[in-house]
Amino acid sequence: MTRLFNDPAAFADEALEGFAAAHRRWVRPVTGGVVRAAATPAGQVAVVIGGGSGHYPAFSGLVGRGLAHGAAVGNVFASPSARQIHSVAEAAHGGAGVLLMYGNYAGDVLHFGQAAERLAAGGIDTRTFAVADDISSAGPDESAKRRGIAGDLPVFKAAAVAAEQGLPLDEVLGVAERAGARTRSFGIAFSGCTLPGADHPLFTVPEARMAVGLGIHGEPGIGEEALPTADEAARLLVETLLGELPEDVAGPGGQRAAVILNGLGSVKYEELFVVYRKVAALLGEAGVEIVDPEVGELVTSFDMAGVSLTLTWLDDRLEELWRAPADTPAYRKGALGTPEPEQAPVTTRAQDTAVPDTAALPPASDASREAAGTVLAALDAVARVVDTHADELGRIDAVAGDGDHGIGMRRGSTAAQRAATDAHGLGAGAGTVLARAADAWADKAGGTSGALWGTILRSLGTALGDQEAPDAPRVADGVTEASAAVRRLGGAEVGDKTMVDVLVPFADTLAAATAEGLPLSDAWDRAATAATEAAAGTAGLLPRRGRARPHAEKSLGTPDAGAHSLALITRAVHGVLLNH
Amino acid sequence: MTRLFNDPAAFADEALEGFAAAHRRWVRPVTGGVVRAAATPAGQVAVVIGGGSGHYPAFSGLVGRGLAHGAAVGNVFASPSARQIHSVAEAAHGGAGVLLMYGNYAGDVLHFGQAAERLAAGGIDTRTFAVADDISSAGPDESAKRRGIAGDLPVFKAAAVAAEQGLPLDEVLGVAERAGARTRSFGIAFSGCTLPGADHPLFTVPEARMAVGLGIHGEPGIGEEALPTADEAARLLVETLLGELPEDVAGPGGQRAAVILNGLGSVKYEELFVVYRKVAALLGEAGVEIVDPEVGELVTSFDMAGVSLTLTWLDDRLEELWRAPADTPAYRKGALGTPEPEQAPVTTRAQDTAVPDTAALPPASDASREAAGTVLAALDAVARVVDTHADELGRIDAVAGDGDHGIGMRRGSTAAQRAATDAHGLGAGAGTVLARAADAWADKAGGTSGALWGTILRSLGTALGDQEAPDAPRVADGVTEASAAVRRLGGAEVGDKTMVDVLVPFADTLAAATAEGLPLSDAWDRAATAATEAAAGTAGLLPRRGRARPHAEKSLGTPDAGAHSLALITRAVHGVLLNH
Repeated sequence: MTRLFNDPAAFADEALEGFAAAHRRWVRPVTGGVVRAAATPAGQVAVVIGGGSGHYPAFSGLVGRGLAHGAAVGNVFASPSARQIHSVAEAAHGGAGVLLMYGNYAGDVLHFGQAAERLAAGGIDTRTFAVADDISSAGPDESAKRRGIAGDLPVFKAAAVAAEQGLPLDEVLGVAERAGARTRSFGIAFSGCTLPGADHPLFTVPEARMAVGLGIHGEPGIGEEALPTADEAARLLVETLLGELPEDVAGPGGQRAAVILNGLGSVKYEELFVVYRKVAALLGEAGVEIVDPEVGELVTSFDMAGVSLTLTWLDDRLEELWRAPADTPAYRKGALGTPEPEQAPVTTRAQDTAVPDTAALPPASDASREAAGTVLAALDAVARVVDTHADELGRIDAVAGDGDHGIGMRRGSTAAQRAATDAHGLGAGAGTVLARAADAWADKAGGTSGALWGTILRSLGTALGDQEAPDAPRVADGVTEASAAVRRLGGAEVGDKTMVDVLVPFADTLAAATAEGLPLSDAWDRAATAATEAAAGTAGLLPRRGRARPHAEKSLGTPDAGAHSLALITRAVHGVLLNH
Repeated sequence: MTRLFNDPAAFADEALEGFAAAHRRWVRPVTGGVVRAAATPAGQVAVVIGGGSGHYPAFSGLVGRGLAHGAAVGNVFASPSARQIHSVAEAAHGGAGVLLMYGNYAGDVLHFGQAAERLAAGGIDTRTFAVADDISSAGPDESAKRRGIAGDLPVFKAAAVAAEQGLPLDEVLGVAERAGARTRSFGIAFSGCTLPGADHPLFTVPEARMAVGLGIHGEPGIGEEALPTADEAARLLVETLLGELPEDVAGPGGQRAAVILNGLGSVKYEELFVVYRKVAALLGEAGVEIVDPEVGELVTSFDMAGVSLTLTWLDDRLEELWRAPADTPAYRKGALGTPEPEQAPVTTRAQDTAVPDTAALPPASDASREAAGTVLAALDAVARVVDTHADELGRIDAVAGDGDHGIGMRRGSTAAQRAATDAHGLGAGAGTVLARAADAWADKAGGTSGALWGTILRSLGTALGDQEAPDAPRVADGVTEASAAVRRLGGAEVGDKTMVDVLVPFADTLAAATAEGLPLSDAWDRAATAATEAAAGTAGLLPRRGRARPHAEKSLGTPDAGAHSLALITRAVHGVLLNH
């Protein structure tokens, strides 16, 4: 378990700060993460990777020559926000465009996608690539839904070396696609990690058993089997991967492969070597030539007990890229000439150096300023109800997800409340207060819920504006727009057992009640009741879209965490509306 | 805990085999361990390091340019045997002598010392150096008794770079001594590791507590305190080390130091970075300039949860050596030019390629051959009684030691029984059967007990010879000689609560009873009774010489493991003597 921390909420920031202090030779901290100590050469595509904290050396430890130009670093197990990614990419940009690379998780896809749009809007040519190597997380016919695990490394590396060779952006993307298509991983686990400040692991496996098909966020696997010997474990890993070769590979015989045997945190080196001994023998028997194997901890999950095998099936080009030298804090290979000069000490904190939002406030009417007071009270109530229920939300989320919903919602709602307080104090109207709160929520929460709640608040803010006094129909319009935006962004529909199952009936009921002429407080009450009922309906067996849900049977009776938190929030806001 | 293994007894061999297979670019396996893939250049001193398995990257992962020329790799937490060390050193020798380097543990000191004598006898100039950096394991006035922990790395590295610079053997030793004198470590722990095949950790610390002053073999520490925050932990580590500066350092201000924050196995990277953040700040406040810090897993103890801080106080020369590049399987730094060419696949197993003992058997009389049958029966009985009690011996040893006494005794007695069977089958006399059994025991068991039992059997064999029928006085003489040899070799006396407390009264009683004219069986019976009583007397509070015994209060009522096993063996052998 994770035992050494100060404030658990500050864990990821403090870890990044310590990491940067220990590795000045390779990296320098920027808002949102780190970039290489030396600037990206002009005309070189910048490869910017990223993801949540808790996976070291992914992602900050993989920044340096021969690997990434920068890494956006999110909170524990949470995607970095679009703003963080944007900031890191801007710092890493060498004038030839940016390739954003990350593991294929909903939150990362949302935030990196948003960041790509903003970068493009700012004139920086940007592409995105999500690594999806974990064959346990979806079938071969749904390979786009697969998660990214230790296959991140060879795919990042291939693209980064191609960038250093001077290839243009679309060709670098092409290399990433080629490497991604030929990279497959599969793993087993014995226990999940215990996050900073938590008092129990994300999952446990009974003694003498193992979970098959691990994730790297405490996802417990797709099945359970008897604990194998090391040789049996090696055979399971090898045979599973040989059972799903890339389409253009007829058979393993005569092929070359990059091989990564990755420990997730507390399967230690000698154990990995005992397993690798048999992995190498079995691949040799199958006629596979192993190229530059890696046996160690490359993508971790704190102290999770697990091991995964990754194969990248090499052609001549991919072999050249895999064999190329690299010099990063955690991954060094071959010879690269003199190291970069050490940087001067950096004393600013990595993630606390957000540029203050000094942009002038849009003008606001008195009526809107008054309404902003109600908005602020509502955001106070949201932060309070989330704080009260954060542990419960985490427990619910841990049934099928990574258990961080409560943490992320608390971070986001607290940041939103603070930003709203500041904007309100400066005399902002209701729309601007919501817009500032939206940015703060998305930025500080990270993850999927951060992106979606940012969208909800921003939609509401746009509908309310800073001039008119917000009446009930205007609020209902804003909620309807939020409902549509969340569906667009998240790609989920009613019935997928996500927050959309709650947001749509809430918006529809609110619109209908408002159309009947009910006052906002009464209309909201009716809509909140519909939301609560809808949240209960998200319990059950139906798999949620786009997400491996291995132990679905356990979730009978447990609602979706995002749906549940939305329902709680609608009810809490009603209390504010009653008094305003 | 360690979950992935095949036969636990084969764990270390299989791990070494897998390690070598994954790192052919850097190392090649030889009997007893690994050496660099490329031969040591003629005229360069070879630095050969070593120790037990379970500490990766120590020791095999530290072999390569800029670091060691070879590593002797023992069984789990057991010193490599003198024969292993001798073999690795011979393979690494470049004609300019060998410096043997290891952590300061009784077993390692014994075996490396014996290996040095044999190397010198074979014409290879040899020096030894034991790293003793752990300030918790003995006071400043007894610093020669301190254990070696993560300070191994900077001391090995300093000597190895000096060797590559072409310095002669005694100057390389001088560099090791200088680096060792300026290297200090201190650590804290939260739980011990669980060895392969064991079902519980070597120690546990109550929840929300920590052990202060960790070892790397499951030694639990010298005290217990409340679980600190990361910042408090950093302060404890820094202040403890600043409290014991080297004699020639007046104060920390203006000093430079190599800094290693070492995770023992399951205190993971982000946690280490959070702690390092404060370590760096506190050292900065004290005026210490940090040079090339390392934050990671450099010397581990399987999945032990612990962290240690090492400072090497640098002068210009030590700084040059610390900053020098290195390229090993687990430690790479700076630029060293083109990597060594990859070696052809090695198909032999690393530790199973012992040269068969084809030396002609000394001639033996019929009487001695007949007695050899009794010796073999006795060694059968020894192996059986050790096997039956191995778990109990491990538990007893874990009270004050590293818990491997049962494992080591089982390995040694089994190997001795096999070697004796082979020699007996070839017609060897009693003396030669015992001599072969002695070598096998020392070689396969490793550790302190392996060295001492090898000495006991060899002393007996020398006394019995291959000509005379062994009568009672001859056996008693052999036991008396064994008793003297063990005291010489181990440096312990009666009252130190070691096996000497049993061996001396056993030998004395046997000699006295034999002098009275008792038949061997009766005399042995009386002596075995004395041994059993003496073993019980090793329970109690008195600290054992030369060994940190942190939780001595727990050992009230628990005898010394080596004393207990000797008593069990004397009793088992009596059963054989009754029937022959």
